[in-house]
Amino acid sequence: MNVRPDTTRTVYDGKLLDVVVEEWNGREREIVVHPGSTAIVAVDGEGCVTLVRQLREPARAELLELPAGTLEEGESPLESARRELAEEVGLRGGSWSELGVFYTTPGFCNERMHVFLAKGVECGSANPEADEQLEVVRWHVSELADRLADLKDAKTIAGLSLFLRSQT
Amino acid sequence: MNVRPDTTRTVYDGKLLDVVVEEWNGREREIVVHPGSTAIVAVDGEGCVTLVRQLREPARAELLELPAGTLEEGESPLESARRELAEEVGLRGGSWSELGVFYTTPGFCNERMHVFLAKGVECGSANPEADEQLEVVRWHVSELADRLADLKDAKTIAGLSLFLRSQT
Repeated sequence: MNVRPDTTRTVYDGKLLDVVVEEWNGREREIVVHPGSTAIVAVDGEGCVTLVRQLREPARAELLELPAGTLEEGESPLESARRELAEEVGLRGGSWSELGVFYTTPGFCNERMHVFLAKGVECGSANPEADEQLEVVRWHVSELADRLADLKDAKTIAGLSLFLRSQT
Repeated sequence: MNVRPDTTRTVYDGKLLDVVVEEWNGREREIVVHPGSTAIVAVDGEGCVTLVRQLREPARAELLELPAGTLEEGESPLESARRELAEEVGLRGGSWSELGVFYTTPGFCNERMHVFLAKGVECGSANPEADEQLEVVRWHVSELADRLADLKDAKTIAGLSLFLRSQT
Protein backbone atom coordinates (compact mmCIF):
# COMPACT_ATOMS: atom_id res chain seq x y z
CA MET A 1 0.00 0.00 0.00
CA ASN A 2 1.17 3.48 -0.82
CA VAL A 3 1.36 5.27 2.50
CA ARG A 4 3.11 8.38 1.26
CA PRO A 5 1.48 11.36 -0.42
CA ASP A 6 2.31 12.28 -3.99
CA THR A 7 2.91 15.89 -3.02
CA THR A 8 2.97 17.94 0.18
CA ARG A 9 2.92 21.67 0.66
CA THR A 10 2.99 23.57 3.93
CA VAL A 11 0.13 26.07 4.08
CA TYR A 12 0.61 27.16 7.71
CA ASP A 13 3.86 27.09 9.68
CA GLY A 14 3.01 27.69 13.33
CA LYS A 15 4.57 27.40 16.77
CA LEU A 16 2.96 24.22 18.12
CA LEU A 17 1.53 22.94 14.86
CA ASP A 18 1.71 23.21 11.09
CA VAL A 19 -0.90 22.57 8.42
CA VAL A 20 0.02 20.78 5.21
CA VAL A 21 -2.02 20.02 2.12
CA GLU A 22 -1.14 16.63 0.67
CA GLU A 23 -2.19 15.04 -2.58
CA TRP A 24 -3.01 11.32 -2.45
CA ASN A 25 -3.93 9.76 -5.79
CA GLY A 26 -5.48 13.01 -6.95
CA ARG A 27 -7.33 13.74 -3.70
CA GLU A 28 -6.30 16.64 -1.46
CA ARG A 29 -6.00 16.19 2.29
CA GLU A 30 -5.64 19.05 4.77
CA ILE A 31 -3.58 17.75 7.68
CA VAL A 32 -2.58 19.28 11.02
CA VAL A 33 1.00 18.25 11.85
CA HIS A 34 1.61 17.82 15.57
CA PRO A 35 4.72 16.58 17.44
CA GLY A 36 2.85 13.90 19.42
CA SER A 37 1.91 13.73 23.06
CA THR A 38 1.61 11.67 26.21
CA ALA A 39 -0.96 11.19 28.97
CA ILE A 40 -0.52 9.48 32.30
CA VAL A 41 -2.77 7.37 34.53
CA ALA A 42 -0.91 7.93 37.81
CA VAL A 43 -2.05 5.82 40.76
CA ASP A 44 -0.78 6.74 44.23
CA GLY A 45 -0.38 4.65 47.38
CA GLU A 46 -3.96 5.38 48.41
CA GLY A 47 -5.38 3.92 45.20
CA CYS A 48 -6.28 7.29 43.70
CA VAL A 49 -5.78 8.52 40.14
CA THR A 50 -4.73 12.16 39.73
CA LEU A 51 -6.66 14.32 37.25
CA VAL A 52 -6.26 18.02 36.45
CA ARG A 53 -8.96 20.57 35.87
CA GLN A 54 -7.88 23.48 33.70
CA LEU A 55 -9.18 26.09 31.29
CA ARG A 56 -9.02 24.76 27.75
CA GLU A 57 -9.27 27.82 25.58
CA PRO A 58 -10.40 25.91 22.45
CA ALA A 59 -13.35 24.49 24.43
CA ARG A 60 -14.16 27.81 26.17
CA ALA A 61 -14.45 25.75 29.35
CA GLU A 62 -12.59 24.03 32.16
CA LEU A 63 -12.12 20.35 31.51
CA LEU A 64 -11.09 17.50 33.79
CA GLU A 65 -8.34 15.46 32.17
CA LEU A 66 -5.47 13.09 32.68
CA PRO A 67 -2.16 14.89 33.10
CA ALA A 68 -0.78 15.19 29.58
CA GLY A 69 1.71 17.07 27.49
CA THR A 70 3.36 17.56 24.15
CA LEU A 71 6.55 15.76 23.15
CA GLU A 72 9.58 18.02 23.09
CA GLU A 73 12.36 17.70 20.54
CA GLY A 74 14.60 14.69 21.19
CA GLU A 75 12.45 13.37 24.03
CA SER A 76 11.16 9.81 24.17
CA PRO A 77 7.46 9.39 25.07
CA LEU A 78 8.39 7.92 28.48
CA GLU A 79 10.81 10.75 29.30
CA SER A 80 8.18 13.27 28.27
CA ALA A 81 5.48 11.64 30.38
CA ARG A 82 7.72 11.51 33.48
CA ARG A 83 8.64 15.16 33.04
CA GLU A 84 5.02 16.28 32.52
CA LEU A 85 3.76 14.35 35.54
CA ALA A 86 6.41 15.88 37.79
CA GLU A 87 6.00 19.42 36.45
CA GLU A 88 2.21 19.53 36.27
CA VAL A 89 1.18 17.76 39.44
CA GLY A 90 4.39 17.04 41.36
CA LEU A 91 4.14 13.25 41.18
CA ARG A 92 7.39 11.30 40.99
CA GLY A 93 8.70 7.74 41.11
CA GLY A 94 6.42 4.78 40.63
CA SER A 95 6.51 1.78 38.35
CA TRP A 96 5.80 2.69 34.71
CA SER A 97 4.30 0.74 31.83
CA GLU A 98 2.54 1.62 28.56
CA LEU A 99 -1.25 1.24 28.43
CA GLY A 100 -1.67 2.09 24.77
CA VAL A 101 -0.95 4.38 21.84
CA PHE A 102 -3.72 6.08 19.87
CA TYR A 103 -4.42 8.85 17.42
CA THR A 104 -6.55 11.62 18.94
CA THR A 105 -8.34 12.63 15.73
CA PRO A 106 -6.85 10.79 12.76
CA GLY A 107 -9.20 12.17 10.13
CA PHE A 108 -7.25 15.41 9.91
CA CYS A 109 -4.36 15.36 12.41
CA ASN A 110 -1.30 13.16 12.96
CA GLU A 111 -1.16 13.61 16.75
CA ARG A 112 -0.20 10.25 18.23
CA MET A 113 -0.57 9.91 21.98
CA HIS A 114 1.20 7.44 24.26
CA VAL A 115 -0.70 6.63 27.44
CA PHE A 116 1.29 5.38 30.41
CA LEU A 117 0.38 3.83 33.71
CA ALA A 118 2.51 4.97 36.67
CA LYS A 119 1.75 2.88 39.76
CA GLY A 120 2.82 3.91 43.25
CA VAL A 121 3.72 7.52 42.44
CA GLU A 122 4.73 9.82 45.31
CA CYS A 123 4.00 13.47 45.97
CA GLY A 124 6.67 16.08 45.45
CA SER A 125 6.31 19.75 44.54
CA ALA A 126 4.74 20.71 41.24
CA ASN A 127 6.21 23.26 38.90
CA PRO A 128 3.58 24.06 36.28
CA GLU A 129 4.33 26.47 33.48
CA ALA A 130 3.49 30.08 34.29
CA ASP A 131 0.40 30.00 32.10
CA GLU A 132 -0.98 26.73 33.47
CA GLN A 133 -3.58 27.15 36.18
CA LEU A 134 -4.40 23.69 37.37
CA GLU A 135 -6.68 22.25 39.98
CA VAL A 136 -5.66 18.75 41.04
CA VAL A 137 -8.52 16.27 41.53
CA ARG A 138 -8.11 12.71 42.81
CA TRP A 139 -10.54 9.93 42.04
CA HIS A 140 -10.31 6.55 43.73
CA VAL A 141 -9.84 3.67 41.30
CA SER A 142 -13.12 2.16 42.52
CA GLU A 143 -15.05 5.27 41.34
CA LEU A 144 -13.61 5.48 37.83
CA ALA A 145 -16.05 3.25 35.97
CA ASP A 146 -19.08 5.14 37.28
CA ARG A 147 -17.57 8.51 36.42
CA LEU A 148 -16.42 7.85 32.85
CA ALA A 149 -19.57 9.37 31.39
CA ASP A 150 -18.97 12.65 33.31
CA LEU A 151 -15.74 13.27 31.39
CA LYS A 152 -15.60 15.52 28.34
CA ASP A 153 -12.14 14.65 27.03
CA ALA A 154 -11.57 11.69 24.72
CA LYS A 155 -8.02 10.81 25.85
CA THR A 156 -9.17 10.74 29.49
CA ILE A 157 -12.12 8.45 28.77
CA ALA A 158 -9.93 6.25 26.55
CA GLY A 159 -6.92 6.21 28.90
CA LEU A 160 -8.95 5.40 32.02
CA SER A 161 -10.86 2.71 30.11
CA LEU A 162 -7.60 1.07 28.99
CA PHE A 163 -6.39 1.24 32.60
CA LEU A 164 -9.59 -0.33 33.97
CA ARG A 165 -9.40 -3.03 31.32
CA SER A 166 -5.75 -3.77 32.20
CA GLN A 167 -6.75 -4.41 35.82
CA THR A 168 -9.24 -7.17 35.02
CA MET B 1 -14.66 33.25 34.47
CA ASN B 2 -13.65 34.95 31.25
CA VAL B 3 -14.18 32.34 28.57
CA ARG B 4 -13.60 34.60 25.60
CA PRO B 5 -10.24 35.60 24.17
CA ASP B 6 -9.11 39.22 24.20
CA THR B 7 -8.21 39.07 20.52
CA THR B 8 -8.47 36.54 17.70
CA ARG B 9 -6.80 36.53 14.33
CA THR B 10 -7.17 33.94 11.60
CA VAL B 11 -3.76 32.71 10.45
CA TYR B 12 -4.96 29.92 8.16
CA ASP B 13 -8.29 29.75 6.37
CA GLY B 14 -8.72 26.27 4.99
CA LYS B 15 -11.38 24.00 3.55
CA LEU B 16 -12.15 21.69 6.48
CA LEU B 17 -10.42 23.68 9.18
CA ASP B 18 -9.02 27.08 10.09
CA VAL B 19 -6.25 28.06 12.49
CA VAL B 20 -6.64 31.10 14.72
CA VAL B 21 -4.23 32.71 17.16
CA GLU B 22 -6.02 34.00 20.22
CA GLU B 23 -4.73 36.13 23.06
CA TRP B 24 -5.93 35.20 26.54
CA ASN B 25 -4.70 37.49 29.33
CA GLY B 26 -1.48 38.14 27.46
CA ARG B 27 -0.89 34.49 26.48
CA GLU B 28 -1.13 33.37 22.87
CA ARG B 29 -2.98 30.21 21.93
CA GLU B 30 -2.82 28.55 18.51
CA ILE B 31 -6.18 26.86 17.92
CA VAL B 32 -7.49 24.62 15.15
CA VAL B 33 -11.13 25.51 14.42
CA HIS B 34 -13.22 22.52 13.38
CA PRO B 35 -16.97 22.25 12.70
CA GLY B 36 -17.50 19.34 15.11
CA SER B 37 -18.23 15.71 14.42
CA THR B 38 -20.15 12.59 15.33
CA ALA B 39 -19.40 8.90 15.82
CA ILE B 40 -21.82 6.02 16.05
CA VAL B 41 -21.90 2.75 18.00
CA ALA B 42 -24.35 0.89 15.78
CA VAL B 43 -25.55 -2.47 17.09
CA ASP B 44 -27.43 -4.76 14.71
CA GLY B 45 -29.92 -7.53 15.35
CA GLU B 46 -27.12 -10.10 15.72
CA GLY B 47 -25.50 -8.15 18.57
CA CYS B 48 -22.60 -6.91 16.45
CA VAL B 49 -21.07 -3.43 16.34
CA THR B 50 -19.99 -2.16 12.92
CA LEU B 51 -16.50 -0.69 12.56
CA VAL B 52 -14.74 0.63 9.48
CA ARG B 53 -11.14 0.12 8.45
CA GLN B 54 -9.79 2.84 6.21
CA LEU B 55 -6.61 4.60 5.20
CA ARG B 56 -6.05 7.61 7.42
CA GLU B 57 -3.56 9.71 5.55
CA PRO B 58 -2.42 11.67 8.64
CA ALA B 59 -1.50 8.37 10.35
CA ARG B 60 0.07 6.85 7.21
CA ALA B 61 -1.88 3.71 8.09
CA GLU B 62 -5.23 1.98 7.98
CA LEU B 63 -7.12 2.35 11.23
CA LEU B 64 -10.16 0.53 12.57
CA GLU B 65 -12.71 3.05 13.83
CA LEU B 66 -16.32 3.71 14.66
CA PRO B 67 -18.24 5.15 11.71
CA ALA B 68 -17.84 8.91 12.06
CA GLY B 69 -18.12 12.13 10.16
CA THR B 70 -17.93 15.89 10.19
CA LEU B 71 -20.96 18.09 10.87
CA GLU B 72 -22.23 19.86 7.81
CA GLU B 73 -23.62 23.38 7.85
CA GLY B 74 -27.07 23.55 9.42
CA GLU B 75 -27.09 19.91 10.45
CA SER B 76 -27.84 18.76 13.99
CA PRO B 77 -25.47 16.15 15.46
CA LEU B 78 -28.18 13.48 15.30
CA GLU B 79 -29.05 14.25 11.67
CA SER B 80 -25.37 14.15 10.78
CA ALA B 81 -24.82 10.83 12.55
CA ARG B 82 -27.80 9.20 10.82
CA ARG B 83 -26.60 10.46 7.43
CA GLU B 84 -23.02 9.28 7.99
CA LEU B 85 -24.08 5.83 9.18
CA ALA B 86 -26.30 5.32 6.13
CA GLU B 87 -23.75 6.69 3.64
CA GLU B 88 -20.64 5.03 5.02
CA VAL B 89 -21.88 1.58 5.93
CA GLY B 90 -25.48 1.38 4.73
CA LEU B 91 -27.05 0.98 8.18
CA ARG B 92 -30.48 2.50 8.71
CA GLY B 93 -33.26 2.64 11.27
CA GLY B 94 -32.71 1.62 14.85
CA SER B 95 -33.37 3.30 18.17
CA TRP B 96 -31.01 6.23 18.81
CA SER B 97 -29.66 7.78 22.00
CA GLU B 98 -26.62 9.87 22.92
CA LEU B 99 -23.75 8.10 24.73
CA GLY B 100 -21.64 11.18 25.35
CA VAL B 101 -20.00 14.32 24.02
CA PHE B 102 -16.26 14.91 24.21
CA TYR B 103 -13.44 16.99 22.83
CA THR B 104 -10.99 14.96 20.76
CA THR B 105 -7.89 17.01 21.58
CA PRO B 106 -8.84 20.11 23.58
CA GLY B 107 -5.34 21.42 24.12
CA PHE B 108 -5.24 22.89 20.64
CA CYS B 109 -8.49 22.11 18.78
CA ASN B 110 -12.17 22.86 19.37
CA GLU B 111 -13.47 19.68 17.71
CA ARG B 112 -16.42 18.47 19.79
CA MET B 113 -17.70 15.00 19.02
CA HIS B 114 -21.14 13.61 19.77
CA VAL B 115 -21.23 9.84 20.16
CA PHE B 116 -24.52 8.08 19.54
CA LEU B 117 -25.79 4.59 20.17
CA ALA B 118 -28.04 3.17 17.43
CA LYS B 119 -29.61 -0.10 18.53
CA GLY B 120 -31.29 -2.50 16.13
CA VAL B 121 -29.95 -0.97 12.91
CA GLU B 122 -30.71 -2.71 9.63
CA CYS B 123 -28.62 -3.25 6.52
CA GLY B 124 -29.27 -1.21 3.40
CA SER B 125 -26.88 -0.20 0.66
CA ALA B 126 -23.94 2.02 1.46
CA ASN B 127 -23.00 5.05 -0.56
CA PRO B 128 -19.56 6.16 0.59
CA GLU B 129 -17.93 9.25 -0.89
CA ALA B 130 -15.86 8.53 -3.96
CA ASP B 131 -12.61 8.95 -2.06
CA GLU B 132 -13.60 6.72 0.86
CA GLN B 133 -12.36 3.16 0.60
CA LEU B 134 -13.83 1.35 3.53
CA GLU B 135 -13.70 -2.19 4.81
CA VAL B 136 -16.59 -3.01 7.11
CA VAL B 137 -15.71 -5.09 10.19
CA ARG B 138 -18.23 -6.40 12.72
CA TRP B 139 -17.36 -7.22 16.30
CA HIS B 140 -19.78 -8.96 18.60
CA VAL B 141 -20.62 -6.94 21.71
CA SER B 142 -19.21 -9.75 23.86
CA GLU B 143 -15.75 -9.31 22.27
CA LEU B 144 -15.47 -5.53 22.66
CA ALA B 145 -13.92 -5.34 26.11
CA ASP B 146 -11.09 -7.73 25.20
CA ARG B 147 -10.35 -5.88 21.97
CA LEU B 148 -10.24 -2.30 23.26
CA ALA B 149 -6.47 -2.38 23.60
CA ASP B 150 -6.07 -3.38 19.92
CA LEU B 151 -7.62 -0.10 18.76
CA LYS B 152 -5.49 2.88 17.76
CA ASP B 153 -8.15 5.60 17.62
CA ALA B 154 -9.16 7.54 20.73
CA LYS B 155 -12.82 8.15 19.78
CA THR B 156 -13.32 4.45 19.11
CA ILE B 157 -11.81 3.38 22.45
CA ALA B 158 -13.76 6.12 24.26
CA GLY B 159 -17.04 5.53 22.41
CA LEU B 160 -17.00 1.76 22.86
CA SER B 161 -16.09 2.18 26.53
CA LEU B 162 -19.02 4.52 27.09
CA PHE B 163 -21.25 2.01 25.32
CA LEU B 164 -20.01 -0.92 27.45
CA ARG B 165 -20.46 1.17 30.59
CA SER B 166 -24.03 2.09 29.56
CA GLN B 167 -24.91 -1.61 29.34
CA THR B 168 -23.97 -2.44 32.95
